[in-house]
Amino acid sequence: MNYMDPFNSFFNMKELELEPEGDLIARRLSDMQGMYQQEDNVAGNPKIYEYYNVRLPEIPGHLQHCVTVISPGKIGKEYHMTKGHYHEVEETAEIYFTIQGRGKLVMQTKEGDSKVLDMEEGMISYIPPYWSHRTINTGEEPLVFVGVYPGNAGHDYGDIEERGMKKLVVEEDGQPKVIDNPDY
Amino acid sequence: MNYMDPFNSFFNMKELELEPEGDLIARRLSDMQGMYQQEDNVAGNPKIYEYYNVRLPEIPGHLQHCVTVISPGKIGKEYHMTKGHYHEVEETAEIYFTIQGRGKLVMQTKEGDSKVLDMEEGMISYIPPYWSHRTINTGEEPLVFVGVYPGNAGHDYGDIEERGMKKLVVEEDGQPKVIDNPDY
Repeated sequence: MNYMDPFNSFFNMKELELEPEGDLIARRLSDMQGMYQQEDNVAGNPKIYEYYNVRLPEIPGHLQHCVTVISPGKIGKEYHMTKGHYHEVEETAEIYFTIQGRGKLVMQTKEGDSKVLDMEEGMISYIPPYWSHRTINTGEEPLVFVGVYPGNAGHDYGDIEERGMKKLVVEEDGQPKVIDNPDY
Repeated sequence: MNYMDPFNSFFNMKELELEPEGDLIARRLSDMQGMYQQEDNVAGNPKIYEYYNVRLPEIPGHLQHCVTVISPGKIGKEYHMTKGHYHEVEETAEIYFTIQGRGKLVMQTKEGDSKVLDMEEGMISYIPPYWSHRTINTGEEPLVFVGVYPGNAGHDYGDIEERGMKKLVVEEDGQPKVIDNPDY
């Protein structure tokens, strides 16, 4: 039988880079049009986050994985965040292990439940099947985490691109606060 | 529909403890009889490693995960190591993310292929389907890593308990060296 060879990827904690980098995807503000409440008066087109994807066969026994680096900052009152997505195969979970930084993990189901967890170094966050997930950097350094999900999970960005999420994370009096999304 | 709630576990990097601890399993030398070449003259019954299991439903879309802490040390010339296992459902992968320490990840297939990868802080090791895996602490501090695997993978310790693994990692001139197992 023809087995896949085991392999290592190395995440350089100083440079915040994966070696080899796999697929490196950068998301700038222009890639997230309509996702922030106040994106009109932002100078330039800041990089919000990037992630390194290590791609495996898209079948259930394999484990896709990636390292995400969200730069610190805000767009209006909202902290930098990822686009957020459901899995195409909805009955698949995801795990985040936070390496560095501070943030929030905002999740919701298509039936309207919402849940927010804290992220900090050493936190292992379990996103059970059916929960969409978005990560938000509420700190002053990059928020860095490893994500692992089943090989066949896939990504479904459409619902959140169209409707947003029920909860926003904004800065209020210098502190992160979870509020209801007025446009949802 | 009745969804599982998202949840966090926190790995305390100073105490090397998971909170909440989940199932905590400690492996002492007496739990690994016959696995080391020279276990007869060891004083007492040293703890070799422990791991914290976060248990999820044993179905493919979920992700079991655990944090393993291998204490530094040797039994004879061999460094402290885990028992090693195949997955019961052989077509399932596993990922290790190393948090702290230095080690080796020794893998083999039932068809006799063997492979060894390095472990160090920031390393993401991919163990594809069909490869058994054992981790070995070759450093002077605890080797700590997070493991993630599909919910239905299961553990099969029997083959390695009976036959051992083809490769051993021993100290030679103060350095770790991978050698053929004379008893295999």
